[in-house]
Amino acid sequence: MQNKPNKTEKLQKLVDIIKDVEVAMMTTIEDDGCMRSRPMRAVQTNPNGEIWFFTGYESGKSHEIQHDSHVNLSYAKPSDEVYVSISGRAYLSKDKAKIDELWSPTQKAWFPQGKDDPNIGLIRVEVEKAEYWDAPNSTMIQLYGMAKATLTGESAKTGDNQKINLK
Amino acid sequence: MQNKPNKTEKLQKLVDIIKDVEVAMMTTIEDDGCMRSRPMRAVQTNPNGEIWFFTGYESGKSHEIQHDSHVNLSYAKPSDEVYVSISGRAYLSKDKAKIDELWSPTQKAWFPQGKDDPNIGLIRVEVEKAEYWDAPNSTMIQLYGMAKATLTGESAKTGDNQKINLK
Repeated sequence: MQNKPNKTEKLQKLVDIIKDVEVAMMTTIEDDGCMRSRPMRAVQTNPNGEIWFFTGYESGKSHEIQHDSHVNLSYAKPSDEVYVSISGRAYLSKDKAKIDELWSPTQKAWFPQGKDDPNIGLIRVEVEKAEYWDAPNSTMIQLYGMAKATLTGESAKTGDNQKINLK
Repeated sequence: MQNKPNKTEKLQKLVDIIKDVEVAMMTTIEDDGCMRSRPMRAVQTNPNGEIWFFTGYESGKSHEIQHDSHVNLSYAKPSDEVYVSISGRAYLSKDKAKIDELWSPTQKAWFPQGKDDPNIGLIRVEVEKAEYWDAPNSTMIQLYGMAKATLTGESAKTGDNQKINLK
């Protein structure tokens, strides 16, 4: 029977994977129900279950998340056979203090006028649940309720996946 | 001004990327609107815009696509800075002739009873539109209407992406 990592290890492993892979495919839902994804690089990943991205305030994805806040963030690193699915809710923000905190010169490629660019915006993703697949066992590890910070335990399921509730 | 690949080249490039990356993250919508993704390896990618996968007939994703057929397939190869988003519709099938055609011994890991495993099923994704991002220019190439086979041209947009209609 395989070793069962504890919940702190699983959460840390998830955060490590996200930071290693760096680029997420963020999937949103258009008004007609069609699902689109695009590569996005997070600027901050917080242990409390928030992931932050810069975005054009007037953009397809901004409109989509204002219409339906459900998003999926998938991370894939085929060379390591590592895959992550994060189910969450995305919120658009123009919070100046947070923009200041997260700004770096690399953002100038998208916001030539800098932090005060009229089109600068942020997407805050609140993580509701997460699953990850990790070679070589193709074991699926599931983490639920990451948006809330208190950890509670739950016994592992039988079979080849494990579930953890984070409440 | 950058070179503009013609539509046949773009379509071929998209198919080449999909075949090279191999593993898609397939995102589906749960009954409550939550979006989940999981790694899936296609067993056939057709130029007419159909992509086929094996699946457990009784499985979370099967239920989800029967409830809402919209799916997104994202392909990511961070080492090459290549990303693809495919918007489409997914349909569940138990077609015996197609199962026979697509079967290979590698599937035994999931269907121990072989082609006649009671839980064996197929997902057929019909591609409606596709976008891909390719280093080093981070140019977004968009292909629309891939489910239909006749190609028509449309002039490129200004800026850093190109659109093509495939009708």
